[in-house]
Amino acid sequence: MLNPRNSAFSVSAGAIVLLLPLTSSVGAASQGGMADLNVGLDFLWVAIILLAAKFSNLVTRYGQPSVLGELLVGVALGNLTLVGFDFFEPIQKDVIIRFLAELGVVILLFQVGLESNIQKMLRVGPHAVLVACVGVAVPFILGTSIVGPLLLPDLSFNAYLFLGAILTATSVGISARVFRDLGKLQSVEAQIVLGAAVIDDVLGLTILAIVKASVESGNVSFATVSWITAKAVLFLGGAIFLGKRLAPELGRLLSRINPGIGMKFILAVSFGLIFAYLAELIGLAPIVGAFAAGMVLEPVHFRHFNKPVIFDKIDESIRDASPEIKMAVANVLDSLSHSHIQDLIKPLAYFLVPIFFVLTGMQVTLETFFNLPVLVLALTVTLAAIGGKIVSCLGAGRVDKLIIGWGMVPRGEVGLIFATTGKAMGVISDELFSIVVIVIMLTTILPPPILNFLLKRQDT
Amino acid sequence: MLNPRNSAFSVSAGAIVLLLPLTSSVGAASQGGMADLNVGLDFLWVAIILLAAKFSNLVTRYGQPSVLGELLVGVALGNLTLVGFDFFEPIQKDVIIRFLAELGVVILLFQVGLESNIQKMLRVGPHAVLVACVGVAVPFILGTSIVGPLLLPDLSFNAYLFLGAILTATSVGISARVFRDLGKLQSVEAQIVLGAAVIDDVLGLTILAIVKASVESGNVSFATVSWITAKAVLFLGGAIFLGKRLAPELGRLLSRINPGIGMKFILAVSFGLIFAYLAELIGLAPIVGAFAAGMVLEPVHFRHFNKPVIFDKIDESIRDASPEIKMAVANVLDSLSHSHIQDLIKPLAYFLVPIFFVLTGMQVTLETFFNLPVLVLALTVTLAAIGGKIVSCLGAGRVDKLIIGWGMVPRGEVGLIFATTGKAMGVISDELFSIVVIVIMLTTILPPPILNFLLKRQDT
Repeated sequence: MLNPRNSAFSVSAGAIVLLLPLTSSVGAASQGGMADLNVGLDFLWVAIILLAAKFSNLVTRYGQPSVLGELLVGVALGNLTLVGFDFFEPIQKDVIIRFLAELGVVILLFQVGLESNIQKMLRVGPHAVLVACVGVAVPFILGTSIVGPLLLPDLSFNAYLFLGAILTATSVGISARVFRDLGKLQSVEAQIVLGAAVIDDVLGLTILAIVKASVESGNVSFATVSWITAKAVLFLGGAIFLGKRLAPELGRLLSRINPGIGMKFILAVSFGLIFAYLAELIGLAPIVGAFAAGMVLEPVHFRHFNKPVIFDKIDESIRDASPEIKMAVANVLDSLSHSHIQDLIKPLAYFLVPIFFVLTGMQVTLETFFNLPVLVLALTVTLAAIGGKIVSCLGAGRVDKLIIGWGMVPRGEVGLIFATTGKAMGVISDELFSIVVIVIMLTTILPPPILNFLLKRQDT
Repeated sequence: MLNPRNSAFSVSAGAIVLLLPLTSSVGAASQGGMADLNVGLDFLWVAIILLAAKFSNLVTRYGQPSVLGELLVGVALGNLTLVGFDFFEPIQKDVIIRFLAELGVVILLFQVGLESNIQKMLRVGPHAVLVACVGVAVPFILGTSIVGPLLLPDLSFNAYLFLGAILTATSVGISARVFRDLGKLQSVEAQIVLGAAVIDDVLGLTILAIVKASVESGNVSFATVSWITAKAVLFLGGAIFLGKRLAPELGRLLSRINPGIGMKFILAVSFGLIFAYLAELIGLAPIVGAFAAGMVLEPVHFRHFNKPVIFDKIDESIRDASPEIKMAVANVLDSLSHSHIQDLIKPLAYFLVPIFFVLTGMQVTLETFFNLPVLVLALTVTLAAIGGKIVSCLGAGRVDKLIIGWGMVPRGEVGLIFATTGKAMGVISDELFSIVVIVIMLTTILPPPILNFLLKRQDT
C-alpha cells in the first residue's frame, strides 16, 4: 500500500535530499525536518478554516461585522475538546497555519495602509498622537501602579511593569476589520484610530523593550530608552520618506522588465513583505511595516503598467461602437483603474485574513471562565483595561469620541505577544497569565459588536 | 534591546502557550516548535523569490516561456554557494517556503483543470490513454530491463525496478506552464498531453506503490496490485462523477449564506484543496486531486453568486445612457463573467506558482555536472528517458506528434518524489541517486525551450 505521508512531500522531500546528492549523509536531521510537513493535511485545515469562516458570515444577517463571526467560529473550533472532540486540535500547533495567519494579518494591514490616505492621516495627526499617548500612558500607569499592586499584592514590581505594558497594546487589526466591514475606513474616527494604533504600537513596543531591558539588567539607562524610542520613530518616518521616493522608481524599472498585471501585483506585495521584514528586523511588529508600505504606495506608482486584461477585452468589444459609447466606457474604465491594486490584493486577503481571525478565536480557552476567583480578578482588570483606553478618546477633538475609545480597546495578538514574552522570562506567573488571557479575550471579543452598534447609531 | 525573534511570533507564540494557561508546563517542546518559525525572514524569502522570478521574465524577450526564466533564476540562486555566497541557502530548507511551493503547484494544476474542457478531454480521451500507456510502459521496461542492467550492472533488481518507476513519471506542471504561457492550453496537443499526464500520474503512482510493496515484502500479490490500481481509477472517476453532482448544490447552499465574491472564491479554492487532500489521503499526488477539482467546476456552478463589484459600478455609471450603450456594455459584461473564477484565482497563482518553479530550480546542483563518469552515465539514461517518452507520441493520432512527445518528457517534482522514496528505502545508492538527479534536471530544463520552438513553428 502507498503510504500517504510519502507522497506528501513532493518538492519538499527532494529539496533537502538533493542538496547532498553525492554524499551519503541524508541523515536524521533532514528527515526530521520533513516529518513536520504534511501538505495534504494542511490543505484540509486551510479549507476547513476558510469554509468555517465563510459559514460564520451568517452573523452579518444579525447586523454584526463578519470578523466577529470568524472569531466566534474560532472559539467554537478551539473548544470542541470540552465536549471530547479533538479533531481540530492540531490546527493550533501547525506551523504552516500559524505562518498563513501571520501573513494574513500582514496582508490585512497592508490593505488598510493602501486604503489610508496619508494626507487625511496627517490632518488628523495631532489628534491621533494625543489619543495614542493618553491611551498608552493611562493603561500603563493603571497596570503598574494601581490595578497591579491593589488587586495582586503578592507579585513583584517587574510583574506589574509587564502588566502595564500588556495593557498599553492596541491590536489595530480587529478595529480595522470592523471599520472596513461597515465601509467606514475613510471616516475621521477610523483615521484617528488607525493613526493612533500605529503610534500606539510603536510606543507599546518601545515600552515592552524598555521593560524587558530593565527586568533583564536590573536597571536601564536613559541612553537605551532614547535609542529604542528613536529607532521606532526613525523607522516609520524613514519608511514613509524613502518609500515615497523609491516606489515610483521601482515601478518604472519593473514595468520595463514586464508591464503585466502579475508584475504590478508582485511589486506591491513584495513591497509590503519587505517592509514587514524590516520592521521586525529592528524589533517592531511586522504589521507596522506592512501598514507603512501600504501608506507609501499610491496608484500613480503603477501608471507604467498595463491596464487589466478585462479593460482590453471591453475596449475591443466596443471597437465598432459609436464615439458616444466609447467615451462612456472609457470614463468608467479610467475611474476603475485607480482601485486596481486593491482588487488584485483582495483574493490574497480572502484566502489569508480569515485564517488569522479564526486562529485568534481558537486561542480562547473557555475553561478559564469557570475558575471564579481568577474570573473576578480578570473582570476587574478588564474594566481597567477598557477604561484606560476609553479615556484616550478625550484627546480626539470634535468627533464621535466613544467610537475612538472603543476602537482602541482590542488587545488581540499584540497583547498576546507581550504576555508570552513576560511568561517566557519567568516574570509573569501562571495565575497572572490566566488573568491576562481573559483580559485579552474580553477586550478582543467585546469591541466588534459595540463598535458596530456605535457606527450604525452614527448613521441614523 | 528588543530581540526581533520575539516579535516574530505574534499569534503563533500565543497559540501554543495559551493552550495551557493554568499549567506551568510551557515546556521545551512548544518552545522548540516556535523556534523554527521566523515569519519576518520568511516574508523576506518570499519577496526575494517573487522579485527574482519577475526579473527572470526577461527571457520572454528572447521568445522563451517565463517558466524557463523562473527555473534558471532558481538554478542561479541555488548554486551561488559555488562562488562562496550562501545567503540564500536557508530558503531550500525552510518548511514554510516548501509548503508555499507545494500549494503553488496545486493552485497551478487547479487553474489548468479550470481551463480544461472535460468534453474536449473526453474527445481526445482514447489518444490520451494510448499516449499515457506507451509513455509509462516503454520507459519502465527501458529502465528495468535495458538501461539499468546494461549501464549499471552492479545494482540489485530492486534498484532497476525503482529506476524504471522514476522514468515513468511525467510532471505535468512544467508542460502545462509552457502551453499556458503561449496561450496553447486549448489546443488538441495540450489536451492530449494534459489528459495523458493525469493518466500517467495515476499509472506511475500505481507502479511506484507496487514497486514499493514488492521491495518491502519480497513479492507482491495480484490482489494488491489490482487494489492499488482500482483505487487510483476509482478516485478520479468518483471525484469527477460526485463532484459534478455536488458542486452545483454546494454553490447554491453557500450563495445563500453569502452571495459575495469572497464566498465564491473560497468555495472554489476549498474545493481544490479538499480534492488535493483526498488524493493524497488515498496515496495519489495532491496535484491529481487539484486538477480533478478544477475539471469538475464550471462557471454555471457559480451563477447564484453576485457579479463582481466592478460590474455594478459600470452598470451604475451608465444608468442614464441610451439603451444602445446599455446593451453594448451588458453584452461585454456577460461574456466576461464566465471567466471570473479564473480571474479570482490568478492573484493567488501570481503569488504562489513562481515559488514552486524557483524552488525546483534551486534543487539543481551544478556540481554534479563536473563528475565525468557520473555525467556520461547520466546523459545516456537521459537519452533513454527522453526517447522512452517521445515514442509515446505514436499513439497520438493526427496531430503534431513531437509536441506531444516533448510535452510528456518533464519528470520534475514527480520524479523527485520517486527518487527520494527509493533513497529513503535504501534501494537507490548514492551514485544512482546522482544519476537520477541529473536525468530529472535535464528532462525538466530541456522541454520548455524545445516545446516553445515546436509550438511557435506550428504557428508559422
